[in-house]
Amino acid sequence: MTVFYILDLLGTSAFAISGALFAMNKKMDPIGVFIIAFVTAVGGGTIRDVITGRFPVVWMGDLNYVYIISISVVLAIIFRKRISYLSKSLFLFDTIGLGIFTIIGTKIGIENEFHPIICVFLGTISASFGGVIRDILANEIPLIFHKEIYATACIIGSVTFLVLNQLRLDQNFNYIVTTLMVITVRLIAVKFKLQLPTIYKN
Amino acid sequence: MTVFYILDLLGTSAFAISGALFAMNKKMDPIGVFIIAFVTAVGGGTIRDVITGRFPVVWMGDLNYVYIISISVVLAIIFRKRISYLSKSLFLFDTIGLGIFTIIGTKIGIENEFHPIICVFLGTISASFGGVIRDILANEIPLIFHKEIYATACIIGSVTFLVLNQLRLDQNFNYIVTTLMVITVRLIAVKFKLQLPTIYKN
Amino acid sequence: MTVFYILDLLGTSAFAISGALFAMNKKMDPIGVFIIAFVTAVGGGTIRDVITGRFPVVWMGDLNYVYIISISVVLAIIFRKRISYLSKSLFLFDTIGLGIFTIIGTKIGIENEFHPIICVFLGTISASFGGVIRDILANEIPLIFHKEIYATACIIGSVTFLVLNQLRLDQNFNYIVTTLMVITVRLIAVKFKLQLPTIYKN
Repeated sequence: MTVFYILDLLGTSAFAISGALFAMNKKMDPIGVFIIAFVTAVGGGTIRDVITGRFPVVWMGDLNYVYIISISVVLAIIFRKRISYLSKSLFLFDTIGLGIFTIIGTKIGIENEFHPIICVFLGTISASFGGVIRDILANEIPLIFHKEIYATACIIGSVTFLVLNQLRLDQNFNYIVTTLMVITVRLIAVKFKLQLPTIYKN
Repeated sequence: MTVFYILDLLGTSAFAISGALFAMNKKMDPIGVFIIAFVTAVGGGTIRDVITGRFPVVWMGDLNYVYIISISVVLAIIFRKRISYLSKSLFLFDTIGLGIFTIIGTKIGIENEFHPIICVFLGTISASFGGVIRDILANEIPLIFHKEIYATACIIGSVTFLVLNQLRLDQNFNYIVTTLMVITVRLIAVKFKLQLPTIYKN
Repeated sequence: MTVFYILDLLGTSAFAISGALFAMNKKMDPIGVFIIAFVTAVGGGTIRDVITGRFPVVWMGDLNYVYIISISVVLAIIFRKRISYLSKSLFLFDTIGLGIFTIIGTKIGIENEFHPIICVFLGTISASFGGVIRDILANEIPLIFHKEIYATACIIGSVTFLVLNQLRLDQNFNYIVTTLMVITVRLIAVKFKLQLPTIYKN
């Protein structure tokens, strides 16, 4: 079990917890909470696998994803009051997941010899489309379209990964720098309330 | 043509009728009614086939699905007033579809040698995600997340099927018991207004 | 580079522009505008490729789609005020895209030896489901379900293409006639405010 795989499961856990909290806020029943947590955690990776033709999709062949999501949901339900106080660490955790999933998607693109632009797309889809599906299922306009530097952080992270990969630096070094880059972009954006300018139709 | 295949088409028909009634309630035009009926009937199976890598998806290779859905939509449009009186038999019919689709998804999981947990997921997805897509297309929060023991009935049915399958009992006996189990769970839930407890975030 | 391929890119561009205008109306940020433009342009083709098992999906293997969409989005942002005046030509352009995407989907169905009915489905999905995804992402009931002869135009176009293809006429002649047919149906429908009758549930 590599460090990277552990990070992957950590990211999955973070997204599952954020999905579960989201669903509890919507007053869904426990099955609904689990389903929302599940699609938040694996939705992006599922779309990535489907459009690239990797079957069966990743969580179907490796039960650890199901286990880690189940445990995360149970913990989120039990500690839901405390987690509210921990929202900052959850945000950080979620951002770590964002960084790791960006890397995984980008890597799969490289391994399949797609053009770098497509690799960036795959990284961004892997990291952010779980949240898009979550928002659609809850009947909300996906956050990605109107708030936060969410997709932007993924894109910057993915490009960072591609450049470092081209320089043939140590893989683990690349992982760390990319993840830190995503975290930094998002923290700075939130800290200074940065948003991309809206283009009004006028 | 096996009994099972006939049951499959019956389930498809039931879901198509329920989708058509839903769309007429939303005052959609006939093409919209057909599309909603179609995705309600084949949506779950399509997602199941896509994530397991079975291409082309089932309804593309067997026109009987298209025929049965078309006939069901026409009947639903013609008899829309009467069907309202028949809502109880429609509910039963829809629940039979739920049972059968749960079995089909679970069986495909077994045949592809997935872990039993993944088989339960496939059964639940096959049976309930057509309705999820229907609700999303109509801009509503999917029923599955906040009402009825819908997904729960699928999960219990799927586990029942797996256990009976392990006991190597007669397949047809297994089909019947599983379908009856799903129907029973759902009828009891509706009868006694059972709902899973909501977890409020407080 | 065939005439057909150029038409394909033109259709992609038209859909990207219409998606970008749609997103700007919703006051999304630039990344959101790009994502909406992208899914509007390639969403239908992606679903078509996924359900027929063509991987990786078309835009992942041919960067021209990404380029043409990017350019279209930039142009849509720069000229957003003028395009409002040009809404009639945009409508025409969008309808040309509709005609071309209907043909592409139908052709892929024929090449994969699907039944003509399935070919019509593939044509309609290719042409109209990008818009469906766009509407879902923006949290609106898809236009296709309640307004305009949108899907109907695709269906008529697809049937026209199949009949002409059966007559073994010149392919380019077939392309032109089908596209004109889709444009004509839609223009007549809009001109005379034709709508399919709604079936009220009463």
